[in-house]
Amino acid sequence: MTSGNGVAGLLLPDEVLVVDVGPRDGLQNEARPVSAAEKIALINGLARAGIRRIEATSFVSPKAVPQMADAAEVMAGIDRVAGVEYAVLVPNVRGLERALAAGAGIVNVVVVATETFNHRNVNMSVAESMAAFDTITREARTAGVPVSAVLGAAFVCPFEGSVPAEQVLGLVEQFAQTGITELTLADTIGAAHPAQVARLVTAIRERWPHLALGLHLHDTRGLGLANALAAVTAGVTRLEASVGGIGGCPFAPGATGNASTEDLVFMLEAMGVHTGISLEALIAVAQSVPAIVGHPVSSKMLAAGPPRPAPPAKTQT
Amino acid sequence: MTSGNGVAGLLLPDEVLVVDVGPRDGLQNEARPVSAAEKIALINGLARAGIRRIEATSFVSPKAVPQMADAAEVMAGIDRVAGVEYAVLVPNVRGLERALAAGAGIVNVVVVATETFNHRNVNMSVAESMAAFDTITREARTAGVPVSAVLGAAFVCPFEGSVPAEQVLGLVEQFAQTGITELTLADTIGAAHPAQVARLVTAIRERWPHLALGLHLHDTRGLGLANALAAVTAGVTRLEASVGGIGGCPFAPGATGNASTEDLVFMLEAMGVHTGISLEALIAVAQSVPAIVGHPVSSKMLAAGPPRPAPPAKTQT
Repeated sequence: MTSGNGVAGLLLPDEVLVVDVGPRDGLQNEARPVSAAEKIALINGLARAGIRRIEATSFVSPKAVPQMADAAEVMAGIDRVAGVEYAVLVPNVRGLERALAAGAGIVNVVVVATETFNHRNVNMSVAESMAAFDTITREARTAGVPVSAVLGAAFVCPFEGSVPAEQVLGLVEQFAQTGITELTLADTIGAAHPAQVARLVTAIRERWPHLALGLHLHDTRGLGLANALAAVTAGVTRLEASVGGIGGCPFAPGATGNASTEDLVFMLEAMGVHTGISLEALIAVAQSVPAIVGHPVSSKMLAAGPPRPAPPAKTQT
Repeated sequence: MTSGNGVAGLLLPDEVLVVDVGPRDGLQNEARPVSAAEKIALINGLARAGIRRIEATSFVSPKAVPQMADAAEVMAGIDRVAGVEYAVLVPNVRGLERALAAGAGIVNVVVVATETFNHRNVNMSVAESMAAFDTITREARTAGVPVSAVLGAAFVCPFEGSVPAEQVLGLVEQFAQTGITELTLADTIGAAHPAQVARLVTAIRERWPHLALGLHLHDTRGLGLANALAAVTAGVTRLEASVGGIGGCPFAPGATGNASTEDLVFMLEAMGVHTGISLEALIAVAQSVPAIVGHPVSSKMLAAGPPRPAPPAKTQT
């Protein structure tokens, strides 16, 4: 951590890992079916733009999530760009085995923080999911593939409302006992606010200072980048967003999806927080997204572009 | 200032004055002509929702800004809700006289921070505009009406790029010498970033601690609420946004306008920062806005609504 190039008031890190989850979380919440070829082109574009971790797909049941039925085909078709981590979501041991066979670089495994939402998600109690997490983690470790733990609905549950910090800390303790080294707090329905983010991140970092913390951002209510700001000032080193801001929220029909990766990268780079990503190349990828999803997207950088000095004024003083 | 109800990491104020500038800055940048009756209904709706200051109109030349030609009619037609400040923008002494005759409660007077942009705006140098500001302020003071100083393009100029803090501080010094008590830093083209906002606000507060600082927010590149967060943690006590997020940016065709007032109020109230505004009533006003401007608006709260516990889950654990 530095003081952000002499910036008063904001304590900023030198760099942040920006993860694009558009190919998985974004597309999964879009109505239009997207071909494997389109997904492969999107993932390759993101990798070439400098995104260093991409959530490429999900090895879930094709019956449950038909949009991700082509997971193996996508993983087989993508370029493996040096320095890029290709992460996938797996819900269970069967998904892990498919992911390992497909050459996944990292497996993301979710436990949802509340009983109601977790049960609706996977028909298990939180304790059962945590036990399954432990099993998956052991098997992945044996295979030499790192697990990234995800705590779903870590801030607000669509069924139970605001999630008490004590409840989250108890689950982080259980995660920590499995030997994980990184954890993502997911604002699954885009209802967290910056003070809640800062408070929870600070509390986790006090008790588990060696756990690398990420924040999975949704922009359902417009707070995605404000939450990102609160997160990085509190010590989060990884932020998850989607190119074009694609995706949505099953609990808020008509709402926007993940925070836009290009808006996030613009903010971070403008503040001197290094991402390693070419904003220009990323915007070029984002320009391909409306055709893929079949509608305009919420990305602001796509509409406005980076600020540039305008042509010389006609009237100069 | 408090520690924000025990929030670790973010130093938040107990309350913030949220100013809605939709009827002026928002509508001025919309293409569709809006009738005085529609403007009056909008302003009355905002006042009833608890907005305590509204930038109602602008007493500029009708030739320069035809959208504001009905300024006197609007001011004559609105309800004067107790406790609500009706602010207007004035560019010169003639505008001030019209504003005073119309019963303006506060006059906002702008000087743009860069020579090129100020000259394009009002065909004067910054020094000439600062002299005009002094004259207007003296006349307003004689009439017993407070002046709110606005520094346009206080962060980034569309012609000159990023504005050096030293340049801004020199202009704040000149403003301070006129005896002003409040100043608004305007992110006129929506290109400021949170670190720049925090740095500039902190520097101004160190030198002029008794100056009440505001931030005029645009969301051109999606950073409106992140900038708002940085501003309030650095000591800004007033934030300017527009209902529905209406407006635009002449320098970024197709871009969105001011930050959305309802998204801003959601963020502030969720964090325990009091605004005095009914979010429900404000969203109801925002629902009328797409018909007024003739297109969908960028407001996220309008699409998603506040987070609410969903109906009881069918599968309970």
